[in-house]
Amino acid sequence: MINVGIIGYGYWGPNLVRNFFAANDCMVKSVADARPERLQQLNKHFPAIKGVSQGDMIIRDSKIDAVVIATPVFTHFELAKKALNAGKHVLLEKPMAASAAEAEILINLAEKKGLLLMVDHTFLYTGAVQKMRQLIDRHELGSIKYLDSTRINLGLFQSDINVLWDLAPHDLSILSYLVDEKPHSVNARGITHTCNGIENIAYLTVNFPSGLIAHFNCSWTSPVKVRMMLIGGDEKMILYNDLEITEKIKVYDTGYTYYNDEERQQVLVDYRTGDIHVPKVSTIEALLNMANDFITCIKEKKQPQSSCYLGLEVVRILEASNESIKNKGREVVVDNLSASVAYSA
Amino acid sequence: MINVGIIGYGYWGPNLVRNFFAANDCMVKSVADARPERLQQLNKHFPAIKGVSQGDMIIRDSKIDAVVIATPVFTHFELAKKALNAGKHVLLEKPMAASAAEAEILINLAEKKGLLLMVDHTFLYTGAVQKMRQLIDRHELGSIKYLDSTRINLGLFQSDINVLWDLAPHDLSILSYLVDEKPHSVNARGITHTCNGIENIAYLTVNFPSGLIAHFNCSWTSPVKVRMMLIGGDEKMILYNDLEITEKIKVYDTGYTYYNDEERQQVLVDYRTGDIHVPKVSTIEALLNMANDFITCIKEKKQPQSSCYLGLEVVRILEASNESIKNKGREVVVDNLSASVAYSA
Amino acid sequence: MINVGIIGYGYWGPNLVRNFFAANDCMVKSVADARPERLQQLNKHFPAIKGVSQGDMIIRDSKIDAVVIATPVFTHFELAKKALNAGKHVLLEKPMAASAAEAEILINLAEKKGLLLMVDHTFLYTGAVQKMRQLIDRHELGSIKYLDSTRINLGLFQSDINVLWDLAPHDLSILSYLVDEKPHSVNARGITHTCNGIENIAYLTVNFPSGLIAHFNCSWTSPVKVRMMLIGGDEKMILYNDLEITEKIKVYDTGYTYYNDEERQQVLVDYRTGDIHVPKVSTIEALLNMANDFITCIKEKKQPQSSCYLGLEVVRILEASNESIKNKGREVVVDNLSASVAYSA
Amino acid sequence: MINVGIIGYGYWGPNLVRNFFAANDCMVKSVADARPERLQQLNKHFPAIKGVSQGDMIIRDSKIDAVVIATPVFTHFELAKKALNAGKHVLLEKPMAASAAEAEILINLAEKKGLLLMVDHTFLYTGAVQKMRQLIDRHELGSIKYLDSTRINLGLFQSDINVLWDLAPHDLSILSYLVDEKPHSVNARGITHTCNGIENIAYLTVNFPSGLIAHFNCSWTSPVKVRMMLIGGDEKMILYNDLEITEKIKVYDTGYTYYNDEERQQVLVDYRTGDIHVPKVSTIEALLNMANDFITCIKEKKQPQSSCYLGLEVVRILEASNESIKNKGREVVVDNLSASVAYSA
Repeated sequence: MINVGIIGYGYWGPNLVRNFFAANDCMVKSVADARPERLQQLNKHFPAIKGVSQGDMIIRDSKIDAVVIATPVFTHFELAKKALNAGKHVLLEKPMAASAAEAEILINLAEKKGLLLMVDHTFLYTGAVQKMRQLIDRHELGSIKYLDSTRINLGLFQSDINVLWDLAPHDLSILSYLVDEKPHSVNARGITHTCNGIENIAYLTVNFPSGLIAHFNCSWTSPVKVRMMLIGGDEKMILYNDLEITEKIKVYDTGYTYYNDEERQQVLVDYRTGDIHVPKVSTIEALLNMANDFITCIKEKKQPQSSCYLGLEVVRILEASNESIKNKGREVVVDNLSASVAYSA
Repeated sequence: MINVGIIGYGYWGPNLVRNFFAANDCMVKSVADARPERLQQLNKHFPAIKGVSQGDMIIRDSKIDAVVIATPVFTHFELAKKALNAGKHVLLEKPMAASAAEAEILINLAEKKGLLLMVDHTFLYTGAVQKMRQLIDRHELGSIKYLDSTRINLGLFQSDINVLWDLAPHDLSILSYLVDEKPHSVNARGITHTCNGIENIAYLTVNFPSGLIAHFNCSWTSPVKVRMMLIGGDEKMILYNDLEITEKIKVYDTGYTYYNDEERQQVLVDYRTGDIHVPKVSTIEALLNMANDFITCIKEKKQPQSSCYLGLEVVRILEASNESIKNKGREVVVDNLSASVAYSA
Repeated sequence: MINVGIIGYGYWGPNLVRNFFAANDCMVKSVADARPERLQQLNKHFPAIKGVSQGDMIIRDSKIDAVVIATPVFTHFELAKKALNAGKHVLLEKPMAASAAEAEILINLAEKKGLLLMVDHTFLYTGAVQKMRQLIDRHELGSIKYLDSTRINLGLFQSDINVLWDLAPHDLSILSYLVDEKPHSVNARGITHTCNGIENIAYLTVNFPSGLIAHFNCSWTSPVKVRMMLIGGDEKMILYNDLEITEKIKVYDTGYTYYNDEERQQVLVDYRTGDIHVPKVSTIEALLNMANDFITCIKEKKQPQSSCYLGLEVVRILEASNESIKNKGREVVVDNLSASVAYSA
Repeated sequence: MINVGIIGYGYWGPNLVRNFFAANDCMVKSVADARPERLQQLNKHFPAIKGVSQGDMIIRDSKIDAVVIATPVFTHFELAKKALNAGKHVLLEKPMAASAAEAEILINLAEKKGLLLMVDHTFLYTGAVQKMRQLIDRHELGSIKYLDSTRINLGLFQSDINVLWDLAPHDLSILSYLVDEKPHSVNARGITHTCNGIENIAYLTVNFPSGLIAHFNCSWTSPVKVRMMLIGGDEKMILYNDLEITEKIKVYDTGYTYYNDEERQQVLVDYRTGDIHVPKVSTIEALLNMANDFITCIKEKKQPQSSCYLGLEVVRILEASNESIKNKGREVVVDNLSASVAYSA
């Protein structure tokens, strides 16, 4: 039985509490939030869980084995470092940290201490993403040529992070999970429609050595909600529409081949459209799967699907996107090589 | 009665013939195409129209008043120059020319000769775009903050122009038609999945001095066809889905306002969602409206909605996108100032 | 403060508990269910509520003011009669009773005792139905000509009631709520694909004296879920799609007029399509609104929107549909006149 | 080479001309219409085809081998009888005739004369219906349990036939083509919102001896266009949405089984949802396939897919629906046995 403490009972906190409550082999002992009204809410719905006003009270609690950190991004590093130093396993909300440097320090610390450090990229645990991973593992798509994601809606303007740091981690974690190649560079442009300089619309292109291109369209300013991703292989292509209830994943038996027509000095491309297959996907709540993976990996001392290494890659891309936006869209190389992190996913 | 000759009877030619056949105050006299089987098709469906094998035969025909050029882009300049020099009014298929320099020479020539030079940006004549122009003219959207367009499908890989030159002219002409501000710069990234170096997927961002951002997602490699444009004002926003039969334009009474909360040192944003309005739009065939505009403007010596100046702006953006792609996405300033063109749209 | 007891903690019971938990001026004191595992579930989620094994324990509890009955239909009559006789206000799940005779006896009893008897037709409390009622009250639709509803999905085959008694109460309650006219007759056909004689597909037509026709397509056997209702007036028409998230109600400025062309001895019909309006509808949970209406009506001694009289009308139509199905679709007159019920909605 | 004459150049006539123009081994010689403006239209688009003012001029023309009749239903019988007596093969627009008696006389006459009599139920020649027939032939659906069709839109109110005779022939022909069993009876209700007594909304149920039920919802008075058919087998189910461009047919690996639970005296039903398959369907124009089938069957002396026997079955159901509507929805047995027609499809 793993005793869990959760720091932060804001928007996402209640979902974490509910799912760790339902997960196997663990018990939610306490939840920390500085706002009394949030602790009252906690007490109404979960009278058996202790509410405390400070994260430190959880980190110092010797009965707690694992700490879940669901606070603003800029606080992740200090809280996680303290918790790891206190010998706790740590689950961080996404994005993992405010910089790659912070993320690397945390990874090194967790490795040194022999503790689990995990990032909650919930989407990796959805039936849809799991099914896509299966399809790719079975080589059904052929060679992956592009990934194109649109994640837009009329949303809360965050005051500490821009729209890419808010929305793109979902899609970047899926990119990292599905594509084995490491990104070479990014280009990003964004615009703010307020005076605080925080982008509310941004476009990010991630370029890979093989020619694979990934593109991310993120906005808090769209009148319609879109959650759509295309993944194109040269054998088959996938449309992943997360707003669909029963047809989240469509697999198109569609592709193209090309050959050189030397006589006409042209490249000829043949394309082909065939049947569409809509596989049934699991509807188990992704957050419950994530919670169970965290607990299982603590017990079995292994790395989860949503590992800190994947979390770091997401932060590296986000960090590079910041630099590209500052430089008006210039290509920025993603630093994948880090002497300090022994990458072993 | 304006006598019209059409050069090029390929994919688009039959549509031009059919609509100029139906347009007012004009007569299609002859059509040129070097391929005998195309002329046979012409003869089967329009026995009254003369088929000729060379464009020059139309340009030199003294009974022809106006020449419509529907040939590959790289041939536009020479054909249009000859036709203007021969005293013919000219309608060019989009994009207008292979470079801004070519387009400017043609514009200067037409101005000098007092002839009409027009570009067939058909979309401007659709009920949907006309309705959007009306809504903007009535200030219903407020200040326009962004335009975001996706135009993707599994399409013919062109062998002479990339996917931006093929697909984006539609969207760029709508941008120019709806937004009065002149673009400052572009960023573009693209990738080719063949060996001919012609991009089949590309992303283009057009940046404006006011902070308005426009983004274009173009692909020949998508398993699904998408024709979707969002236009966001701070009062209302439009979703334009060209694949919808009866609900092409949805107007969202949705917007956001922001203010500085000095006490909390934050920018606070309020957003609002309200009713949606789906205006009825005209279903008259856009190409017929375009043909009638061409003929009317010849007769009344005025500039059409789809003018050569708008066509030039489209080419300038495309040309800048080429340079940005070559420079890995670097920002490229769009040259809007040209000594040689007396811009007077 | 109204003390509430709930009998039945099956599929719908938890939703009732959760919403009466959140409603104003009431307290859920106890919940009855004969199944120990259901009471365990109750205890896990609502440790403050007492679980009891028998409905009678709630009915006899002198601290309970109001009883909510969420048990199989055939038990409604006995439980509600006991509760009314014990001086409790009663909320019955839909359909109200297994026969109109039972429903009338309960209504008489409630009237005699001065107690509130209400039926939980939850849909009446949705933002969508409330908005439709407003539109009709404002005479926007003109004269209502038809209502056409499809409610199909792959669903649980009930073992005690057929698909009409299971699914149509939703739509029939909306019909009664939106249309002031009383139905004249019904026709119904149904089929069972099992050997128990309980229809899993059925079609019901409700005929009105004015010529208004209402049609209901119900199935437990559809591979797709459809929840769609058309309401046609001669001025405007409504499409109500309950599966839409943000566009549940579309109002079409569409209609038709006819006139006699005596010369050509014909009836000529003109129809017209115009704009579409998608009004924003409230997204407050309908069941919470229903719970609040129940509590408010107890306190203010008034009739709720989902009254027992409306509930009786629904049962009368269902009862007539049974007779029509038995008689192979023959028209069966709906008995709206009952000496025993002083209808005063 | 079969010489064809077409009588009637109204709404559907131009489509027939265009497709017989494109069909193999035939030549459209003349078209008859009493309205001069229709013949002008003909001459504009097909200058090579002779226009005549009377159908008789085609029937008496010795160079004509086959007559296509696209006139109002009430004229079908006389024109077809004359044409058959004149030794012409005949293609009738749907519905075949105004009564089963008329249809039977025509069938007998054609059989006696050794001529082809065919009905243009175009939908049978669509890629979608052909694909459904294949799936049924391969026993993929299991035993067919129901067919449910909705065909509604804001449409022209016909002045000679009601909405079932106008719209249901499409769906009834598909029913006859896909289901081998003969219908036992029908129930129908309809309503007219004009004063001419011609129903503009009608509901038709077709009952089969095996328990298979088919239902048809037809309206000229809907603000939205729906063309949707469900076909449910106990193994798989099909959703056929004719308005979808690329996903007309969806095959659901969905079904249900039931068994008697003797202990609990219940029928238990298990249902199952699995993957969805969207087969690619041919996009060749159905009317061209129909035209080619007509010509081929004349040449090879065989029966077409859309035979006169199938056309007769459609008329029998429509005729029975008339009687049911007159009798307020009462069940009317469909007379499938006719001494006079040697049914040999």
